[in-house]
Amino acid sequence: MSSTFVAILMGSDSDLPVMQATISVLKTFGIEHEVRVRSAHRTPDAAKAYVKDAEERGCKVFICAAGLAAHLAGAVAGMTTRPVIGVPIDNGPLQGHDALLSTVMMPGGIPVATVAIGKAGAKNAGYLAAQILGVADQSIAEKVKAERAANVIALLAKDEAMQAKLT
Amino acid sequence: MSSTFVAILMGSDSDLPVMQATISVLKTFGIEHEVRVRSAHRTPDAAKAYVKDAEERGCKVFICAAGLAAHLAGAVAGMTTRPVIGVPIDNGPLQGHDALLSTVMMPGGIPVATVAIGKAGAKNAGYLAAQILGVADQSIAEKVKAERAANVIALLAKDEAMQAKLT
Amino acid sequence: MSSTFVAILMGSDSDLPVMQATISVLKTFGIEHEVRVRSAHRTPDAAKAYVKDAEERGCKVFICAAGLAAHLAGAVAGMTTRPVIGVPIDNGPLQGHDALLSTVMMPGGIPVATVAIGKAGAKNAGYLAAQILGVADQSIAEKVKAERAANVIALLAKDEAMQAKLT
Amino acid sequence: MSSTFVAILMGSDSDLPVMQATISVLKTFGIEHEVRVRSAHRTPDAAKAYVKDAEERGCKVFICAAGLAAHLAGAVAGMTTRPVIGVPIDNGPLQGHDALLSTVMMPGGIPVATVAIGKAGAKNAGYLAAQILGVADQSIAEKVKAERAANVIALLAKDEAMQAKLT
Amino acid sequence: MSSTFVAILMGSDSDLPVMQATISVLKTFGIEHEVRVRSAHRTPDAAKAYVKDAEERGCKVFICAAGLAAHLAGAVAGMTTRPVIGVPIDNGPLQGHDALLSTVMMPGGIPVATVAIGKAGAKNAGYLAAQILGVADQSIAEKVKAERAANVIALLAKDEAMQAKLT
Amino acid sequence: MSSTFVAILMGSDSDLPVMQATISVLKTFGIEHEVRVRSAHRTPDAAKAYVKDAEERGCKVFICAAGLAAHLAGAVAGMTTRPVIGVPIDNGPLQGHDALLSTVMMPGGIPVATVAIGKAGAKNAGYLAAQILGVADQSIAEKVKAERAANVIALLAKDEAMQAKLT
Amino acid sequence: MSSTFVAILMGSDSDLPVMQATISVLKTFGIEHEVRVRSAHRTPDAAKAYVKDAEERGCKVFICAAGLAAHLAGAVAGMTTRPVIGVPIDNGPLQGHDALLSTVMMPGGIPVATVAIGKAGAKNAGYLAAQILGVADQSIAEKVKAERAANVIALLAKDEAMQAKLT
Amino acid sequence: MSSTFVAILMGSDSDLPVMQATISVLKTFGIEHEVRVRSAHRTPDAAKAYVKDAEERGCKVFICAAGLAAHLAGAVAGMTTRPVIGVPIDNGPLQGHDALLSTVMMPGGIPVATVAIGKAGAKNAGYLAAQILGVADQSIAEKVKAERAANVIALLAKDEAMQAKLT
Repeated sequence: MSSTFVAILMGSDSDLPVMQATISVLKTFGIEHEVRVRSAHRTPDAAKAYVKDAEERGCKVFICAAGLAAHLAGAVAGMTTRPVIGVPIDNGPLQGHDALLSTVMMPGGIPVATVAIGKAGAKNAGYLAAQILGVADQSIAEKVKAERAANVIALLAKDEAMQAKLT
Repeated sequence: MSSTFVAILMGSDSDLPVMQATISVLKTFGIEHEVRVRSAHRTPDAAKAYVKDAEERGCKVFICAAGLAAHLAGAVAGMTTRPVIGVPIDNGPLQGHDALLSTVMMPGGIPVATVAIGKAGAKNAGYLAAQILGVADQSIAEKVKAERAANVIALLAKDEAMQAKLT
Repeated sequence: MSSTFVAILMGSDSDLPVMQATISVLKTFGIEHEVRVRSAHRTPDAAKAYVKDAEERGCKVFICAAGLAAHLAGAVAGMTTRPVIGVPIDNGPLQGHDALLSTVMMPGGIPVATVAIGKAGAKNAGYLAAQILGVADQSIAEKVKAERAANVIALLAKDEAMQAKLT
Repeated sequence: MSSTFVAILMGSDSDLPVMQATISVLKTFGIEHEVRVRSAHRTPDAAKAYVKDAEERGCKVFICAAGLAAHLAGAVAGMTTRPVIGVPIDNGPLQGHDALLSTVMMPGGIPVATVAIGKAGAKNAGYLAAQILGVADQSIAEKVKAERAANVIALLAKDEAMQAKLT
Repeated sequence: MSSTFVAILMGSDSDLPVMQATISVLKTFGIEHEVRVRSAHRTPDAAKAYVKDAEERGCKVFICAAGLAAHLAGAVAGMTTRPVIGVPIDNGPLQGHDALLSTVMMPGGIPVATVAIGKAGAKNAGYLAAQILGVADQSIAEKVKAERAANVIALLAKDEAMQAKLT
Repeated sequence: MSSTFVAILMGSDSDLPVMQATISVLKTFGIEHEVRVRSAHRTPDAAKAYVKDAEERGCKVFICAAGLAAHLAGAVAGMTTRPVIGVPIDNGPLQGHDALLSTVMMPGGIPVATVAIGKAGAKNAGYLAAQILGVADQSIAEKVKAERAANVIALLAKDEAMQAKLT
Repeated sequence: MSSTFVAILMGSDSDLPVMQATISVLKTFGIEHEVRVRSAHRTPDAAKAYVKDAEERGCKVFICAAGLAAHLAGAVAGMTTRPVIGVPIDNGPLQGHDALLSTVMMPGGIPVATVAIGKAGAKNAGYLAAQILGVADQSIAEKVKAERAANVIALLAKDEAMQAKLT
Repeated sequence: MSSTFVAILMGSDSDLPVMQATISVLKTFGIEHEVRVRSAHRTPDAAKAYVKDAEERGCKVFICAAGLAAHLAGAVAGMTTRPVIGVPIDNGPLQGHDALLSTVMMPGGIPVATVAIGKAGAKNAGYLAAQILGVADQSIAEKVKAERAANVIALLAKDEAMQAKLT
C-alpha cells in the first residue's frame, strides 16, 4: 500500500544547498518527500531503479535538479509518465544557460516542466509540485491558495517598510 | 457544478497553428479543453475574468502560449494557483529565445511549468497537462502510459524501416 | 485636483539600491515622484489598483524595474496609456539578459520604453522621464538641457585631470 | 513659429518598409511627422544639422531606426534633450540582436527609449511617441486611450472568430 | 567472436539526411558500421540494450546524433566506456545551439567527444571515429593520412580554378 | 623505437591549474604523458615541430587547452591525423563561450573532439584519452571500466551521507 | 623588387561571393590585390608558404575570410607582423556568431583587425585595407576621402528620392 | 608642421586602467601618442573637434575604447578616414558582449578595426597600431618583428619553467 510523496533527485550532492529551497516549500505545505543523489550519467541504473520503485511506492511528482548538460530531468521523464519538474542549476562557467536549454528543449512526447535557473527555480519547483498535487488533493490546493494570499500581505508590508525608509 | 477541463490561452490567434499540436494531444487522451485568445498586455481584464471563471467551472490546468516578451503564462500564474504550463512561441527575430526567458525565469512563488519553444513544446504541453491530470485520475494516467508504450513500438518500427532503406 | 508626478514601481524591495539612481536624477530636476513595491505576479491586483489611482492623481510617467522574467513594465503598460519606462534589473544568473528581453520585446500596441540593464538604465530612466515631462513643461526641459551642458564640462574636466596623471 | 511634430530618422532607405508601421500609427493619431534618411556614421554632419533644425521647428520626439551596430538613436540622443525612441532593425546575420544591444545599453545621462526589434518595435515607436505627446496634449492622450479600447474589442472578436473555426 | 565496428545512433529518423555525411566518410575508409534510431528519452531501454549488445559484438566507437535537448550522446556515454562522439543537430528554433550545449557540457567522468553542429559535425564524426580506430589499426591510420594529403591537393586545385575565374 | 603517450598542450602556462585535472586522471590510469606550453598564434613553428616529433615518438592522442579565440586544438588537428581533444578554457570576459565555439565548430575534414568548458572538460579530456587508448589497449579499457564502477559506488555513498544529514 | 599589394585569403572557395565585395572596393581605389584559397586547418603549410612569399613580394595587408571556428585570420596573424584583417563569414547554423568570436577574441600580442560578419564586413575589409595603405600613400588616402564625400551625397540623394515617394 | 602619432580616446576615465595596456605597448615601440576622454554621446562636439584637430596635427591611427552600447569607435570612424581601432570594454552586466557587437558590426563604408574585449584587446590595439604605422615606417615594422621573435623565446622559457615544476 502506497502513500503520496514527491521525489527530489539531484545530479550531485553539491546541488543540495540550492535544493533546500524546494525542501523548505514542500515542508511548508506538509508534503511528504524523499531526497536522493542520482546521476543520469554516472548512476543511470540506480536512477532507473529508484524511479521505478518510487513510482510504485506512491511518488506522484519527480523534481530533478542538475547543472551543465543537465540530463537528469529528461532522463527521468523517459522512465516515468508521472510529471517531472526540472530545475536547471547554475554551477558552471555558462551560469546555467546550458542547464536551462538541456532541461527545457525536450522533444515531443517526453515533457519536462522546467522552472527558472537556480534558487528561484528551486523554490518554484516546490510550489509547482504542490499545485500539481493540489489538483487531486483539495487540502493542498487550499494551503497553496492561503500561502499565496499571505504573500500578498507580506509584499505590501515590505512596501510599507520601504516608504518609512524613503521619507 | 463543474467538470474537469484544460484551458488553452494564446496571446494571438496567429499562435493557433502551433497550438493545434496541444489540442491534438489532449484529444488523443479524451481530455476536455477550451481554447481562447487572451493577451496579458492587450486584454488583461478579459484574461483575468476568463481565468477566474474557468477555475470556478473546473479548469484544473492552464496552458498559455505567447511569443516575444511572452508574459501570458506568468500573468495567468499570478491569477490562479492551478498549475500553469507555458509554451514559448518562436514568432519573432530572436526565434523564441526571448519568449523562453520571459516564460521560464519566473520569480519565487509564482511557478510556470515551461516546455520547449514552438511545436515540440506545444505537443509536450498537452502531454504534461495529461500527466498532471493523471495524478488525480487513474484512467488518464493509464492512457498516458499506454500511449508512451505505443510510441516505443512506433519509433522502433521507424528504425526497422530505415534499416531497409540503408541496405 | 491632481499634480504631475512620476511613479517608480519595483518588483521587489531588493531593487531599491539600483533604483536610487532614478530617484536621485528625479530629485536633481525637482520632479515629484512616488516609489512603490508592486509585483506583476505576486500582487497583480494591488499593482493595478495603484496604477489606476496614480494615473487619476496626476501620474504622467511610470518607471518599472524588475529582474528575471521581468513582466512589471509590460503589465503596467497594459493597464495605462501613459508612457511606461522599463528598467531591466541584473539580479539573477543570466545577469539581466532575461530581464532585458522580457522588458523590451513587447508586442505591437503596448510599448515599453526600455533603458539599459542595471545602474546605467536606472539613471537613464530618470533622465528619460524628465525629457518626457519636458515636452509639456518648458522649465523641466530647460533644466535637462542645462544639466547636459554641465555634464560636458564635467567630463572634459575629468579629461584634464587624467592628462595631469599621464604626464 | 513652430508646430509640434515627430521626426523619424533611419540609417538607410532600406529600413523604410519596416518603418511604415511607425508612420501608419502616427497617421492613425493625426500626428505630424517627417521621415529622413540620416546615418550616424555616413552622414553625421547632415544628421546633426537636421536634428538641430528639427528641434527648433518644433520636433518633440525623435524616432531612430538602424540595424547592425545601430548607433543612430544614441547619436541623436547625444545631440538633443528631446526624448529619442530607438528601433533596432533585424537586417543582418545576427537578426537584430546586435542592433538591440547597440541601441538599449546607453551609458548614464543619454537615454534612448528602446522598443522591440523589427516590426513590433516600429509599430510601438509610433504608439510611444503618441503617449509622450499625450502627456502635453490631452486630445492625443484621448485618442490613444480610445484606440486601446478598440483594440480590446478587436482582439476579443478574433477570439470569437477562432471559436467558430474550432467547433 | 567479435569484429570491430562503429555504431551510429540517432534520436530520430529525420536526422538521417545529415548523418549520411558520417556514413559516407566511414565508407571511404572501409570501416564497418551500423545505423540505428534510438532515443534517450523515448526508447531508453532499447537504447541501453543496443549499446550493451553492440559493445559485446565489437563496437569500438559510438556516434550519437540528436537535436534540441540532445541527451543521446551523454546517455550512451553513461552506458559504455567506449569513446562516444556527439553530433549536435540543428533542427529546432535555436539552430542547434541548444543541442551543442546539451552534448558538450558533460560533467566530469563521462566525456562526450563533441563535434560541430550539423553537416560539418556529421562529416567530422566519421573522421574522428576513423582517427580513433587508427590508434589501434595502422591500416586505417594510413588511409586517414592519405585522404588528408589528397584533400590538400583538392583544395589547392579549387584555388587554381578560382584564379582562372578571377582573371 | 616509440612508446605510447598522450601530449597535453596549452596556449599559456596560466592554463596549468585547470589542466592539472587532466594530468591527474591520466596518472590514475598510469598513462604516460607530456605537458607543453605551445601557442597556435605565438609559437606556431614550435607547436608544429613538437607535434611532428611527438607523433614520431609515439604520441597517440593530443589534448589541447586554450581560451578566448582558442585555435590551438584546431591548429594541432591540422598538423596531425591522430585524435585531438580540445578543452575550452574560461579565462576571459565571455567565460569560455568564445573558446567553446572556436574549438568545436571545425570545418569538415579536421575534427576536434571537444569537451566541456573549464574544469569538467579538463577532467573529461583525461577520461576520453584513456577511452581512446583503451580501444587498442585492453588493460587501459579495463581500468576505465573499473574506475567507472567505483564511481557509482562513491556517488551512492554520497547519497547515503546526505540521507544522514537530512534526517 | 616588390610592389605594394593586398592579399585576400579565404578558407573555402564558397566564400568568394561574399568576398567579391572586398575585391570590388579594392578595385575602386585601384589597389593591387591577390585572391587565394588557403585553409588554416586543411592547408596550413600552403597557407604559411603563401604568406611568407607574399610578404616578401610586397604584401602590406592580409585580409582573411572564414566561417565556423574561423582560425584563418588568427593563423595568418601568427605568421606575419603585417596588419591582418579578419572577415567572419556567416555560413553555418550559428550565422557567423562563432566565426566572429573565433576571429576577434585573439590573445595579447597577435591582433586581428576584425570587421562585421558577412557582406558588410567584406566591404569594410576593403575600406580598412585602403585606409591602412593610405597612412603610407597619400594618393590612396585622398581617394578614400573623396569616396567618403561622394557617399554622403549619394545617401542624401536617397533621402530625396524617399521624400518623393512619401508625399 | 605635423608629426605622426596615435590618438587613444576613451568614453570614460574609468576605462584608463584597461587602456594602460595600449599605452604600454606603444611606449615599447617608441610611438608618440595622446590619451583623451571623449564620449560619443556626452561630448560629441568635443570629440569631433579633437579628431579633426588631431588628424591635422598628424594623427595616423585612432584607438577608441568604450563599454556598453560602445559607439565611440564607430562615431570617430564617421569623422575621419584614418584607420580606427575599436576596443570593447567589459564594464557592464553583459561583460562586454554588448560593446563588442556595438563596435564590430559597422555598416559598409565605415570600418572599425575591432580587437578583443577588455585587456587582451587593449594590448592588441597597441600592436595593431604599430603594425599599421609599420606599413609606412620600416623602423617600426622592424621593432614589431623583433618583439614578436622575443616573445617566442619568452613563451618557450615559460614552458621550460613549467617542465621544472611538473617533474
